[in-house]
Amino acid sequence: MKLLRINVADQSFRYQDLTGDDLLLGGRGLTNKIITEEIPAESNALGRHNKLIFATGIMAASAVSSGGRLSVGCKSPLTGGVKEANSGGIVADSMARQGLRGIVLEEAGDKDALWIIKVLEDGVEFIDAKEYSGLGNFPLAKALFERFGEDYAIISVGPAGEYGMLGSAIACTDMYSRQSRMSARGGIGAVMGEVKRVKAVLIPRKGSYALKNRNAEAFKKARMTFNQFVANSERPKALKKYGTADTVMPVQKLGALPTRNFSEGTFEKAEDISGEALYQLISERGGVGRHWEPCMPGCTIQCSNVVPKANGEELVAPLEYETIALMGSNLGLGSIDEIGELNAMANDLGLDTIELGGSLGVMAEAGLVSFGDFQGFKEIMEEVYTGGLRGRLAGNGAGRAGDVLGVRRVPTVKNQTMSAYDPRGVKGTGITYATTPMGADHTAGLTVFVPKDHHDKDGWIGISRNIQITRALYDIVGICAFVTSATAQEPQLLCDMVNALYDRQETVESLNQMAIDLMMAERAYNLKCGLGKETDRIPEYMKEEKLPPYDLVWDVTDEEIDSMWQDQA
Amino acid sequence: MKLLRINVADQSFRYQDLTGDDLLLGGRGLTNKIITEEIPAESNALGRHNKLIFATGIMAASAVSSGGRLSVGCKSPLTGGVKEANSGGIVADSMARQGLRGIVLEEAGDKDALWIIKVLEDGVEFIDAKEYSGLGNFPLAKALFERFGEDYAIISVGPAGEYGMLGSAIACTDMYSRQSRMSARGGIGAVMGEVKRVKAVLIPRKGSYALKNRNAEAFKKARMTFNQFVANSERPKALKKYGTADTVMPVQKLGALPTRNFSEGTFEKAEDISGEALYQLISERGGVGRHWEPCMPGCTIQCSNVVPKANGEELVAPLEYETIALMGSNLGLGSIDEIGELNAMANDLGLDTIELGGSLGVMAEAGLVSFGDFQGFKEIMEEVYTGGLRGRLAGNGAGRAGDVLGVRRVPTVKNQTMSAYDPRGVKGTGITYATTPMGADHTAGLTVFVPKDHHDKDGWIGISRNIQITRALYDIVGICAFVTSATAQEPQLLCDMVNALYDRQETVESLNQMAIDLMMAERAYNLKCGLGKETDRIPEYMKEEKLPPYDLVWDVTDEEIDSMWQDQA
Repeated sequence: MKLLRINVADQSFRYQDLTGDDLLLGGRGLTNKIITEEIPAESNALGRHNKLIFATGIMAASAVSSGGRLSVGCKSPLTGGVKEANSGGIVADSMARQGLRGIVLEEAGDKDALWIIKVLEDGVEFIDAKEYSGLGNFPLAKALFERFGEDYAIISVGPAGEYGMLGSAIACTDMYSRQSRMSARGGIGAVMGEVKRVKAVLIPRKGSYALKNRNAEAFKKARMTFNQFVANSERPKALKKYGTADTVMPVQKLGALPTRNFSEGTFEKAEDISGEALYQLISERGGVGRHWEPCMPGCTIQCSNVVPKANGEELVAPLEYETIALMGSNLGLGSIDEIGELNAMANDLGLDTIELGGSLGVMAEAGLVSFGDFQGFKEIMEEVYTGGLRGRLAGNGAGRAGDVLGVRRVPTVKNQTMSAYDPRGVKGTGITYATTPMGADHTAGLTVFVPKDHHDKDGWIGISRNIQITRALYDIVGICAFVTSATAQEPQLLCDMVNALYDRQETVESLNQMAIDLMMAERAYNLKCGLGKETDRIPEYMKEEKLPPYDLVWDVTDEEIDSMWQDQA
Repeated sequence: MKLLRINVADQSFRYQDLTGDDLLLGGRGLTNKIITEEIPAESNALGRHNKLIFATGIMAASAVSSGGRLSVGCKSPLTGGVKEANSGGIVADSMARQGLRGIVLEEAGDKDALWIIKVLEDGVEFIDAKEYSGLGNFPLAKALFERFGEDYAIISVGPAGEYGMLGSAIACTDMYSRQSRMSARGGIGAVMGEVKRVKAVLIPRKGSYALKNRNAEAFKKARMTFNQFVANSERPKALKKYGTADTVMPVQKLGALPTRNFSEGTFEKAEDISGEALYQLISERGGVGRHWEPCMPGCTIQCSNVVPKANGEELVAPLEYETIALMGSNLGLGSIDEIGELNAMANDLGLDTIELGGSLGVMAEAGLVSFGDFQGFKEIMEEVYTGGLRGRLAGNGAGRAGDVLGVRRVPTVKNQTMSAYDPRGVKGTGITYATTPMGADHTAGLTVFVPKDHHDKDGWIGISRNIQITRALYDIVGICAFVTSATAQEPQLLCDMVNALYDRQETVESLNQMAIDLMMAERAYNLKCGLGKETDRIPEYMKEEKLPPYDLVWDVTDEEIDSMWQDQA
């Protein structure tokens, strides 16, 4: 396995072999190592010292269910701290087939340049991309597939990344050549587009690299046990039928569905945008619509979907719960068609729909647009393409929008917008928002499916902590977070696969410790970046402003928050 | 001496006596004590836990030259840390005559309310101010003087403060009933206007309070010695003739005059906006123009001025060096008339001209307006009155404007715009920007008049440190910083006055220690706010981008910066 390091300033490159213990460095483990060891903590995230790392997990191209996540890491321009955001799609699989565990973009590109980097068998080719400048992810991918053929997986940025927006994402190709799997969070698109001046990285889908494996039979057996366990578990089954949209009604019931800029916890049109409604719409319209679809080869969960327009053509694929809430209820929009159209547009622009939903919600509260005004939101998003001021406010996150517009109800931690669980109603996830090194991020440790009172803060510190450890481990291994809902209770399953594939003698404990060590390294780095415990905080207004209809407040104390990692620090 | 504490939520008030050692708590000393002891460090600066403190120095109304500064303190919405900004004018003198050392505004006003607080002999009166909402400082003061008579000194905010802008200032009445002495920095106007919902505080100018003084003769003698020493010193004399504008040409000569968003260090029209040019313009036009004028009773320096229009009417009063640079050369404007008009408008809006110059410079670099386009800048500023987006960008500081517009050349420390000395060309002042708890702020320790090579970093750490100590001491005592250019070398002069007036046995060392203790308390508070040493930094681009024409870079290392207060920490 190799690391490919590319200097975008002088277009040079070099390979670096990964051997021994380093072979266990995948995904967030690899991004973390390079970030903490090589990017000076005090450097400007939008300056030349930042690096952008694409890392596969350690199970990529090994036919492990959902094992093809791609981690993207850098110092975050949005939070100012460590950042890893991962996505599905076929990039990780394609990289692994070239023998690449990671690709690192170093230094800053000339600001007048714009590049496509094509990964070759023995190096890279820099191709002038200026003709694609300003192009959205979809027409870009179309043009690149036409020009270079469809035998490539693409990593790309839309205009938001090129313009350096703090809410910009990085898009990856899915199994059907859609450029729609987003490593979304933390403004990482800006590092690729503005700093590195890279519009796209092309990786051959086919490749002959195969991991040497002395224990092929044992691995095959462990993998089969793992995959079957996942396929037969409850939560994955629900995910397969309704997609993540099945989360709408449970969170509505908890009174924690972000509504009209987190000012309410229930939405009068929640049923219209629920998993059930989505299922019905896809069934009725037919066309290209699909209830379930894998986003990466070999996934047994297949929680992705394709939402058709009334005429049967593709509206958006996939439509996920987080987007439904942040760009639906949070904006007062109660129509799947409207949310889907904005979602597709956000993907094309290369914007994180959570961060975008946060800033649009703030803009609506400021009166720049009305809640529920679909056309109004769409017009603002169109200004992202043209660089208009409203587009710039929408694209740079809720924190900046709040500051500029004088809105103080800004639902962020470490300047990153919360996802679709108001922490006042889902205490455990609020604790995750506060304590993960990533800024408000449900994927770091989602607690909403734990069967326990979510309004009562009691006991959630420990639960969030344990889930964060598991999620971090899966982020290293590169297996989708959704698998944890099945396998988290049977940790030996993962352990067996790791040991067989890499000829190790890991234990459940040693793997968990690896995850804890990772988070401690991330937290130590954050501290050097200036993100100390005073940034592990839910916003003050959530402690004082009661969330209707259940009058919920954030009542977890700072001391309780600070206790979570105390024995590790 | 008393503190008057006013609760703006329920319109109650209470007095608190200051006795014993507390009598030495003036100005920044008093604001610091209340901030660090009473405002939770992690609280939102724009939330109800913030307090706004107006504090006189300990020499107010004692006929000490330039001893009538008014300190305004709070947790800064701009930097997120401790903040003290002071100004001249007649407010401190008026407060002292009522026996008031300080006024503290506590809690948050109802967001639909807007108040005038009238200080009475034995309490306060809350008067509905909604009819004045949105009014600039000048028409506001006119209306208040008409309604209540001119026997009041006014503390007020313009629309920028009401709208909660992070570049908003607080205006105080000068000796000629102009509402133009600005406690400008750190966004403190937002705390008064948005959080406290106070449009103006009225303080009777006349009052019978006199400090009990057992050593009246000794004090009179010490004061006379002090005042005469000031009057006969070199720098004050220059200030009297040209005002602070006399600094333009020396800084131009150093190649450190902020020009076109700090991208150059000299300005081709520097002579047109120099102290000499200003002197000539005032001389030629006559009318209401004045070369020198005191801003507070009993000032022997009288560095203020009145700049007339061509028709002899008042253009602006005063016009100061910082504004000439930040809103002149930094915007490519080379006309005193243009700068003066924008300055008067900024005063009316209640905006810090340094922060505003910073954000307008960033906006020009982003292409929203051209450098040198007076009308363009004026139109943007007009949008502050109406709440337009360009106005909001201009009013919320260079940091936010840079983020939203994707401009990375942003000349700030702790998010506060540097004043009129590019640190690459005036190393000592750059060190002050980095190390003062206040964010980039020349008043915390200006080094530009020290006769020593300003491009060579050697020796400036110690010089900045000593000047910061002296400045902090004068901020406590409430004597204008300009006096330090005369008396800093003769510290016993100040010591004698303090001892005589307050019957103390202070020494030069004990007073200096008081200043050091103050700064250490401020730094400790900042740390709890999340502003650690990683925020004591000059922006990365200044280390890498050479400043024309002398190709200067910021070469003071982080280790050198961190060494400054090491033995105190």
